[in-house]
Amino acid sequence: MSRRGLLLILSSPSGAGKSTLARRLMEWDPTLRFSVSATTRAPRPGEEDGREYYFKSRAEFESMVAAGEMLEHAEVFGNFYGSPKGPVETAMKEGRDTLFDIDWQGGQQIRNSALGRDVVSVFVLPPSIAELERRLRGRAQDSNEVIAGRMAKSQAEISHWAEYDYVIVNTDIDKAFNELLTILQAERMRRDRQPGLAEFVRGLNKEFDAR
Amino acid sequence: MSRRGLLLILSSPSGAGKSTLARRLMEWDPTLRFSVSATTRAPRPGEEDGREYYFKSRAEFESMVAAGEMLEHAEVFGNFYGSPKGPVETAMKEGRDTLFDIDWQGGQQIRNSALGRDVVSVFVLPPSIAELERRLRGRAQDSNEVIAGRMAKSQAEISHWAEYDYVIVNTDIDKAFNELLTILQAERMRRDRQPGLAEFVRGLNKEFDAR
Repeated sequence: MSRRGLLLILSSPSGAGKSTLARRLMEWDPTLRFSVSATTRAPRPGEEDGREYYFKSRAEFESMVAAGEMLEHAEVFGNFYGSPKGPVETAMKEGRDTLFDIDWQGGQQIRNSALGRDVVSVFVLPPSIAELERRLRGRAQDSNEVIAGRMAKSQAEISHWAEYDYVIVNTDIDKAFNELLTILQAERMRRDRQPGLAEFVRGLNKEFDAR
Repeated sequence: MSRRGLLLILSSPSGAGKSTLARRLMEWDPTLRFSVSATTRAPRPGEEDGREYYFKSRAEFESMVAAGEMLEHAEVFGNFYGSPKGPVETAMKEGRDTLFDIDWQGGQQIRNSALGRDVVSVFVLPPSIAELERRLRGRAQDSNEVIAGRMAKSQAEISHWAEYDYVIVNTDIDKAFNELLTILQAERMRRDRQPGLAEFVRGLNKEFDAR
């Protein structure tokens, strides 16, 4: 009897450590599947199609949406972003969990979809806004204008913290990672996510009856 | 702002390791409050009033039930057992979690009470019935008849495994304890169980507005 995979949604403002947490979780559990988003924005230097994003034209993206192939999608800063549905359904059937690094709009749509009961959602908060800005500026590849836009988006993103199952304040990345791991491990111990339990109990009952 | 304590309910057939797990959890976290049950059964040698149980006469027990002072109660083998409500409410207000070592009847009643949303329930299964019986006989203080009665009760108890949030198969006590700990730690990270988060986010917003 196969286990049904869960959907682990990680959201946070840019710079709160979400991507680092996602990367470390993928390293810790190679059976996790990372949901690569599709986007209409242009690739940045070093980005590879199918790794950071599936890069799509606006027409391609819109036809995927029309065909019901997106689990969620939204427009941000004039570009479309979305999570292709097919790979998620395949992973679930294989009993593999899928990790989503998406924003509140995507989280909200998946939670309200038919797959809502399989969602475990975690919001990552920065310890302070000064620290958030420091981390954003540390990347050093964006202009002041882009940074200002990101900070405005961060405030909007943070306003949705209360829609999530769990909240982690990322003061220390190792501590935050352990908390994320604890959440994933506990959610996997939920009765309805453990494969073969019903069969195991049937075995116990046979043993009782044979006494 | 004070945190509202949760109610951690641990159920299992006798001999599955539940009491050992409960004791180790209490040692690990001294802020946990153990819910001492009230009972009308006679004390066994070595048992102390207020430690293993609150020992009550039938009349005392019935008047507590009538006064609404029991969170749950049930009759087992002709004796009454119940969880006094007062200490639980006090612990919750103090932000302390309460640990219940109770059977499926008690678990069901608390889950269906006004405090149901504060419940985290864990069922502990033995690795096999042979092992369960071995552990029960290892205690060596009970007659064959009592053992037979316990085994019948064990089968009935196990039949309620699917009513619990989490299930732990206790093959190895250290592994089982780590799983229990993981569950408690994750449940404490749930957004609605973390004190002061709303205030923390208000602080972040003030920081945004002051930029």
